[in-house]
Amino acid sequence: MRTDPGAMTRPTGYRATGVACGLKKEGRPDLAFLVSDLPAEWAGVFTRNQVKGHSLVRTRNLLECRMPARAVVINSGNANACVGPEGDLAASRMAELAAAAAGCQPDEVLTGSTGVIGKRLDLDRVAHGIAVAGATLGRTPEDAHAAMQAIMTTDRVPKEVSLSFDLCGVGVTLAGMAKGSGMIHPDMATMIAVIVTDAAVSSLVLELALRKACDRSFNRVSVDGDTSVCDMVLLLANGAAGNARLQDPASPDARRFSEALDRLCDRLARAVAKDGEGATKLVEVLVRGAMTPEDARLAASAVARSPLVKTAMFGEDANWGRILTAVGYSGAAFDPGRVSIGLGDLPVCRNGCALDFDEARASEILAGDEILLWIDLGQGESEDHYYTCDFSYEYVRINGSYRT
Amino acid sequence: MRTDPGAMTRPTGYRATGVACGLKKEGRPDLAFLVSDLPAEWAGVFTRNQVKGHSLVRTRNLLECRMPARAVVINSGNANACVGPEGDLAASRMAELAAAAAGCQPDEVLTGSTGVIGKRLDLDRVAHGIAVAGATLGRTPEDAHAAMQAIMTTDRVPKEVSLSFDLCGVGVTLAGMAKGSGMIHPDMATMIAVIVTDAAVSSLVLELALRKACDRSFNRVSVDGDTSVCDMVLLLANGAAGNARLQDPASPDARRFSEALDRLCDRLARAVAKDGEGATKLVEVLVRGAMTPEDARLAASAVARSPLVKTAMFGEDANWGRILTAVGYSGAAFDPGRVSIGLGDLPVCRNGCALDFDEARASEILAGDEILLWIDLGQGESEDHYYTCDFSYEYVRINGSYRT
Repeated sequence: MRTDPGAMTRPTGYRATGVACGLKKEGRPDLAFLVSDLPAEWAGVFTRNQVKGHSLVRTRNLLECRMPARAVVINSGNANACVGPEGDLAASRMAELAAAAAGCQPDEVLTGSTGVIGKRLDLDRVAHGIAVAGATLGRTPEDAHAAMQAIMTTDRVPKEVSLSFDLCGVGVTLAGMAKGSGMIHPDMATMIAVIVTDAAVSSLVLELALRKACDRSFNRVSVDGDTSVCDMVLLLANGAAGNARLQDPASPDARRFSEALDRLCDRLARAVAKDGEGATKLVEVLVRGAMTPEDARLAASAVARSPLVKTAMFGEDANWGRILTAVGYSGAAFDPGRVSIGLGDLPVCRNGCALDFDEARASEILAGDEILLWIDLGQGESEDHYYTCDFSYEYVRINGSYRT
Repeated sequence: MRTDPGAMTRPTGYRATGVACGLKKEGRPDLAFLVSDLPAEWAGVFTRNQVKGHSLVRTRNLLECRMPARAVVINSGNANACVGPEGDLAASRMAELAAAAAGCQPDEVLTGSTGVIGKRLDLDRVAHGIAVAGATLGRTPEDAHAAMQAIMTTDRVPKEVSLSFDLCGVGVTLAGMAKGSGMIHPDMATMIAVIVTDAAVSSLVLELALRKACDRSFNRVSVDGDTSVCDMVLLLANGAAGNARLQDPASPDARRFSEALDRLCDRLARAVAKDGEGATKLVEVLVRGAMTPEDARLAASAVARSPLVKTAMFGEDANWGRILTAVGYSGAAFDPGRVSIGLGDLPVCRNGCALDFDEARASEILAGDEILLWIDLGQGESEDHYYTCDFSYEYVRINGSYRT
């Protein structure tokens, strides 16, 4: 597996591009277009926020028809959310335009939008953008990278990953791109990611694999505890590699595919946390020794979400009392007298009590750009993890003036 | 009711002081001492965090004996939490020292601590502080104000309120002081507050009135979503005013007392939110039209806690999409198509859709130092509110280096 600028056209049979159509300020790319040469089976997971963007709802409804997909079109700079029936029409129109450009049916086009909520989507600009995109689709890494750039909002770093492996003796490639970087909290999917493969995989196998992979990766990321209305992860498989189609989720090859997808999603999820709005470091919260998996998840989630833990990480302050406090209000069942806490390889609290730890070593660990916080509840065998980031001045700056 | 520097000795029969004993840096006051001339019936509510400070646990245990109280001693600069059996001994020792200084039994002393977690309390300093405090107790507003100053941590503004009213034809006074200002999220009580009255009130009436008052005030404040391990609210009634003792919670006088306490707690709670760490403004989140009271609470809590809403308030950006998004993931039952949202007197969203509102008027409203955000779910008759504040650079600065 590798970080791969231009990953999305690495699998056979995909073309991509990204263009600027004026939805974002300063002429930045804001429309990503991806087309598969062959009809692709697909799966998707979507935000559980009760409020949902119009472009996302359209795609989610398509999933129920189980029709193959030929194209994905995503704009940034505008969420196409909370604008009423006009928003549904805008999503349909976007699909029609993309279908014309890709030479397929509108129902074969998956739509997505991300950006400001409650603002009408400028369809003239989108139409122009899709026309230009249709004419510039290509297979080079540059073309693929342009698509990545066009879905970014406050992301500073593109997040593109690919890996190749064998299925039934045939080499296949899996590639993904993801955008963060604020309004990130796990609730099914927590940002927009598009993953493509040239393997032939049934939509059932895709769906099971995607749910499993998201649950341990994108659903374990928190930047700020806010779950967006536009979050989704799409997975397309066009079969261009020529392997025997994976149909049985229990087969060894389906498992191999599922494991590869797990790894890819984990890498993208870590990248989303590390590039969280204003982040200066990735923080991995690992909870073990919990009585139940749910206790482990609750504890890890509370620590990953705590503004006090996250500001302490920004300040590189070994304030483990805040970690224990967050576990204390998480709802996880535990005995405070049995908890141990550590930073990397340095235990700082044992059985709920302070240890006289080496502050210099703690500072060294906290100065790193990837930090492991571990909590052992001392109650049982369950464990879970969350990826988060520190909370900085920059987060406040970005979000104090996002809309205006 | 009035904001009253020096409130705590306004009711008859209380002496107070605050001294610096070296627990805080730079010689700032860190030990508050309050003594009642007469034994006082009392009530308390305590944090629901599973991790609890040793000084607080001691006081909570005392509550079960239903013995009267004669003194309250609270240190800042150290939470006396997560240091093992030594912490319990430190709390007992603090009570013994305070009892000797007040001329009462240790079991008549209520203890509290606030500050850094996991650091041993320096008992030599505390002993010295209590000795000095015992010798300087007084009844002037300056003495009372010194107690307020000694419980402050990152608070910028003292929070002291008093009000007088009649009970059975006798004039009584109620006074309270509260500290914030980080690690604030409602879960029973959410900071330290001490409230005293010269009315004669049974501990049962005190308890019922305190629970009710806290539920609508301190339990409706969120600064950062982190619930502290040291939170408590204490209420003492020494009967020095000479009214007939209130015993029946349903009597008109008990109700009058309860209403006065509601008002006092509401005022203190607003003050805690407004003085939240780094806050530049108070934000009141009002949810109405909910199907159930719990739906109203969930929605208000999610909006009040959202870092994205809070940074938008800091940036004075009318980004109502973030408000609707927070309601969307709050767990409250509602139909997004029936939601209306407004800032002060300005509706910005109706039936889940953007309104073309006057941006200049929105900016004017958001420039104020007290902002009302209202959300009408359009589902039923229930409503609830939360007090919160904006999220600023200063919050990050304060919490990036709190311990060191």
